[in-house]
Amino acid sequence: MLSIETIQVGELATGQALTVPIYRYHQGRLGPKVYLQANVHGAEVQGNAVLLQLLERLKSCTLNGEVTIVALANPMGINQKSGEFTLGRFDPITGVNWNRQYLGNHIDVQHWLKQQSLNDIEAVYRDFRELLVEETHAALQSSWGLTTGQHLCYRLQALAQQHDLVIDLHTGPKSTRHLYCPKVLADAASTFNIGCVLMMPNEFSGAMDEACFHPWWQLKQLLSQQGIDAPMAVEAFTLELGSQELIDLKAADDDALGILSYLKYKQVIDDDIQPERMTRYACELKDYRKLHAPKGAMVEYHATLGVPHKQGQVLAKLLSMENLNEQPAITELHAPADAIPVLHFASAAVHQGTELFKLMTNYYEI
Amino acid sequence: MLSIETIQVGELATGQALTVPIYRYHQGRLGPKVYLQANVHGAEVQGNAVLLQLLERLKSCTLNGEVTIVALANPMGINQKSGEFTLGRFDPITGVNWNRQYLGNHIDVQHWLKQQSLNDIEAVYRDFRELLVEETHAALQSSWGLTTGQHLCYRLQALAQQHDLVIDLHTGPKSTRHLYCPKVLADAASTFNIGCVLMMPNEFSGAMDEACFHPWWQLKQLLSQQGIDAPMAVEAFTLELGSQELIDLKAADDDALGILSYLKYKQVIDDDIQPERMTRYACELKDYRKLHAPKGAMVEYHATLGVPHKQGQVLAKLLSMENLNEQPAITELHAPADAIPVLHFASAAVHQGTELFKLMTNYYEI
Amino acid sequence: MLSIETIQVGELATGQALTVPIYRYHQGRLGPKVYLQANVHGAEVQGNAVLLQLLERLKSCTLNGEVTIVALANPMGINQKSGEFTLGRFDPITGVNWNRQYLGNHIDVQHWLKQQSLNDIEAVYRDFRELLVEETHAALQSSWGLTTGQHLCYRLQALAQQHDLVIDLHTGPKSTRHLYCPKVLADAASTFNIGCVLMMPNEFSGAMDEACFHPWWQLKQLLSQQGIDAPMAVEAFTLELGSQELIDLKAADDDALGILSYLKYKQVIDDDIQPERMTRYACELKDYRKLHAPKGAMVEYHATLGVPHKQGQVLAKLLSMENLNEQPAITELHAPADAIPVLHFASAAVHQGTELFKLMTNYYEI
Amino acid sequence: MLSIETIQVGELATGQALTVPIYRYHQGRLGPKVYLQANVHGAEVQGNAVLLQLLERLKSCTLNGEVTIVALANPMGINQKSGEFTLGRFDPITGVNWNRQYLGNHIDVQHWLKQQSLNDIEAVYRDFRELLVEETHAALQSSWGLTTGQHLCYRLQALAQQHDLVIDLHTGPKSTRHLYCPKVLADAASTFNIGCVLMMPNEFSGAMDEACFHPWWQLKQLLSQQGIDAPMAVEAFTLELGSQELIDLKAADDDALGILSYLKYKQVIDDDIQPERMTRYACELKDYRKLHAPKGAMVEYHATLGVPHKQGQVLAKLLSMENLNEQPAITELHAPADAIPVLHFASAAVHQGTELFKLMTNYYEI
Repeated sequence: MLSIETIQVGELATGQALTVPIYRYHQGRLGPKVYLQANVHGAEVQGNAVLLQLLERLKSCTLNGEVTIVALANPMGINQKSGEFTLGRFDPITGVNWNRQYLGNHIDVQHWLKQQSLNDIEAVYRDFRELLVEETHAALQSSWGLTTGQHLCYRLQALAQQHDLVIDLHTGPKSTRHLYCPKVLADAASTFNIGCVLMMPNEFSGAMDEACFHPWWQLKQLLSQQGIDAPMAVEAFTLELGSQELIDLKAADDDALGILSYLKYKQVIDDDIQPERMTRYACELKDYRKLHAPKGAMVEYHATLGVPHKQGQVLAKLLSMENLNEQPAITELHAPADAIPVLHFASAAVHQGTELFKLMTNYYEI
Repeated sequence: MLSIETIQVGELATGQALTVPIYRYHQGRLGPKVYLQANVHGAEVQGNAVLLQLLERLKSCTLNGEVTIVALANPMGINQKSGEFTLGRFDPITGVNWNRQYLGNHIDVQHWLKQQSLNDIEAVYRDFRELLVEETHAALQSSWGLTTGQHLCYRLQALAQQHDLVIDLHTGPKSTRHLYCPKVLADAASTFNIGCVLMMPNEFSGAMDEACFHPWWQLKQLLSQQGIDAPMAVEAFTLELGSQELIDLKAADDDALGILSYLKYKQVIDDDIQPERMTRYACELKDYRKLHAPKGAMVEYHATLGVPHKQGQVLAKLLSMENLNEQPAITELHAPADAIPVLHFASAAVHQGTELFKLMTNYYEI
Repeated sequence: MLSIETIQVGELATGQALTVPIYRYHQGRLGPKVYLQANVHGAEVQGNAVLLQLLERLKSCTLNGEVTIVALANPMGINQKSGEFTLGRFDPITGVNWNRQYLGNHIDVQHWLKQQSLNDIEAVYRDFRELLVEETHAALQSSWGLTTGQHLCYRLQALAQQHDLVIDLHTGPKSTRHLYCPKVLADAASTFNIGCVLMMPNEFSGAMDEACFHPWWQLKQLLSQQGIDAPMAVEAFTLELGSQELIDLKAADDDALGILSYLKYKQVIDDDIQPERMTRYACELKDYRKLHAPKGAMVEYHATLGVPHKQGQVLAKLLSMENLNEQPAITELHAPADAIPVLHFASAAVHQGTELFKLMTNYYEI
Repeated sequence: MLSIETIQVGELATGQALTVPIYRYHQGRLGPKVYLQANVHGAEVQGNAVLLQLLERLKSCTLNGEVTIVALANPMGINQKSGEFTLGRFDPITGVNWNRQYLGNHIDVQHWLKQQSLNDIEAVYRDFRELLVEETHAALQSSWGLTTGQHLCYRLQALAQQHDLVIDLHTGPKSTRHLYCPKVLADAASTFNIGCVLMMPNEFSGAMDEACFHPWWQLKQLLSQQGIDAPMAVEAFTLELGSQELIDLKAADDDALGILSYLKYKQVIDDDIQPERMTRYACELKDYRKLHAPKGAMVEYHATLGVPHKQGQVLAKLLSMENLNEQPAITELHAPADAIPVLHFASAAVHQGTELFKLMTNYYEI
């Protein structure tokens, strides 16, 4: 019931194929199709452990539908080192973020919808899905070629588009768990065991989750204008499960449980797995703000991630040793607003302007 | 008449200031203010040599106005090596292109213009310029800080904004000379000694030239709607002068002459320096297309840069040695359309998807 | 009593000087001269915090002699990023380790000693020290130039050579505290608060500590052959204080105390600061062994650093997801001998052959 | 007659095998076994083109013996980019040069030879070769593992050791053709079409050529002490064929011809291919000297590579723009001795201490 298949997502200078193993697991029962991928950013390895633990736990669940698991999704990003660390956040040649190269929807949905019969919404949905997959396959054939990142992203996308629930596993640099949740899917946010939620506008800016849910949200809106209250055929989320450059099998099992809780909510499994009781905070994506280093310095990080801080509270201490007779060695960095620090930079040596923290402002409980 | 001043554009982790020397040259005559900068991309060093030769030639010209020269404009980008080469196209931490971090105009120009008296256009221009500089200075004070690239770009921009003619010197990887010219300034394109011209839409996407001319083009349009035919107060261009990682003092002197030819056209100098007679090709920026490597390979480049090629002509040969008994060792890469190759990739070993060539399509003579 | 001076240790491509601030602290009492430096490897920032805390504590001590403090000793290494992390272990152009470029002693000590009068050993010592400093200064004048690393190292070395006690602060990647101690100085090992000690042969392989003590050990041996039992005029140690990419002011203060304990032992301070009671393990440098990744994998580290492990004990779990139907997802990595793991690799994604652990074998208590 | 086989030389973090295709070509005639490899340094791609052209030419030659061809020998080094260029000179994690990780001979040859019968030298040779290969295979089994580079190098070495003539193809950064020739094989130097020859002492410092010829030179010496004048059973050379990051099929064919000229000299082919008439210069390896940048600067390279220069002749011009009012913009770099510049640095932006040139001094014609 666990089948494996390999897809090619690129080719290296030596001619060697870049391949990714695709696992499909089912128990022969009908139900939603779930797609999970991990490690599109090379240093964010923990998602692989989560997928492994999830697969293990699924084996003792009652599964309706099918789960597709794509671990180690970006072999070039994962294998690219610079010094001891993995240099896998962006294409080392172009600097483009690996998770900003998915294909946006160029279909004129309004025009297309006019040509469909609205009597059979299921057929509309089925045809729309086919159209999306075709569009991705067509893009893969461009006579001018694609970027290295598009070769990877479009192939993963063509696969993900054939599923109903899409979960993209990432991590922050040094981070507490957080969830990117499309606003139209806000109800699902509390079914994961994640305390910090970023509510994304229903827009596309190149990421996998957006690429998956956005066309369906366009369709839903247009149908709504026709008086038809249709559900979202596709749900998509990005889960940021802790810190990069770290494998922790116990934490991975906890996170597998959190994903199962969502799958239970979506009736993919029958087992009684409920979300943890916990305080969950959310803010709009526009209120998720970056705090940059005001100076070049060595940094001692002080903020407790995931916990509300008051404006003016110390987030970090900055050490400078340029002139100890005239300048203080240590200056404090304060929260510029009431905020929840969600992640901080991975290194303790920062240039002026380095993104030191990302903080949720104007946050609220959900 | 040559004065020097140093500005700080950032601070390194050790606390050391990143500084850039600013040279100002004049001969005491009134006239336009010219700003030239070079080497915002770290490997594109040739512009420094051009500025040096230009300064030398200016000393024997009759100069009206003032010339500001900013060589070695991005010290972090220039000093950042990875292996033997300069890794200076993007911030090594974030991957963001150093030339995509200038400040866009957030002023509501329409609203602002309503509050001005249109009787004194010169005053409108003067106040608008002040407003732009103020906006840049305000952005430098953000309580959330700025990125490392913004620290650099905003400071260069605040300086450039106080000038009338702005020239940003770059190079391609392996490249023939080419010019990014705003469409509204198309007349000036033939005054440089550059054979390939990319006509840019009047839009902003983060680069220095756009940041400088775009607000003025907005203003010009709005004045035009009021029946006022006002000139562009600011002209801005990006010149790509050959290949990166190369200093060639003779070629630099040729390019200095080309810039002087434009300055003569703008009456900044009185000397009789005319543009070279040469065939000049142009195309719209949207027709300037990237051709990506269809496979991973070793590459022998064949195209002659700057010269029209027919669709189907061989641009490169791709060597693979994976399986010589079953696959040909050498395959050809053909032009997918009639096109002028302007630049090609710097390395001979490429992954699938590498941007091998940039080509002008739908080109025309100017 | 704290004076500051700046030395130049290199020059960047932009022409900017690489400078290091040198602090000298004394209380006007005679005594040994102590040299401490930190952060020659760019990511090993914690030593800077230790030096800061040490300076603070020294102010309330009774100090005989003088302490020279060189924090942020390698500005190029510290400021060189690649991705989020500091790429500061080796010259990014040549790959040569920054701590392997100090000048070896090319003096024929035997020949030189024959020309000295052995009646005045103090004069011999004084002249020998002068000779060493002169040799370093001469090397800085080579008509063929020096490498970038030699420019840095020789200048630091010329400074350090003028001191009696030399301490070079480093960190491991993820590491417990450990000490590189020359065998001839083994008695001092127990005066630091460091549980793991590597006993170095009295040889030179390019590092600062070796460069400082090795010529004196040569001299001591030759004097011993003349029946003169002379002390080591210079002591030198490398302290590895925890993990890289981390500033921890509390741990830094603990380590400052440990250094003071050694300085008390050397009568540099009068205050009653005693070494902590703790189990201290040592092994010969040749028994400090590297364990390499047997395969490419994701790694969960299990070993407790600084603690004896039995042969066969699990040090790490290796995750692979290539073929879950045929291979186990998780394999264990076992200690190949009874050993104390001292440090492990910084990243959780490793190629085959990556140095996963360094372990003390054939260790003993001291 | 062309067979292909694939060997594994490592494993990436994702679990993907690093493989290298091995081609074997013969025409069924007995004769020497020749091993050629290319591209152990990732950016030095031209050797692949040379091997391709050589294989093509061999097909129309009369070949005695067998030729083994290993192109793209270091897939990790070739595929590792940083920015546009290949970062393939050293392991990106450790900084260790890929061509300094071959296995040195740890056999006590003197002791071993005592146990052999010297009546049958051929048997001695055969057994010695077996011993060397066994030693390499044993090293591959270490319970502590090997470095990533050793995994690659030892496997290539075990293969090369089974051949009689070993040629390792490299390139310089920007370089004229040059040859590393063991002194004991000096006679062969004039059979290649290479104008600059470095005469290597008969020592081992980690490179492929040394690893191959050095044990045989030890054996030859010991036999000589027994009054037996035995030939070198194995010859090994490193050929540096031009510049890195460049594929030039025409130049590759010229170089294929040069290799054939050597193979004719060794009677591997019967065809009448003679070495070109040309001036060939040689010097001892110790006289092959590095000239480092005296300051940080932009560099215009002036020296003509491969041609004798007089002491004091201009090799490069260094541009600085720090303070044009007080310092000259351009300073000259002169040859510190009569010398032949063989290669120069690949980039035009250099820090103080960068290896700008390598020059042959005390050179002589051969």
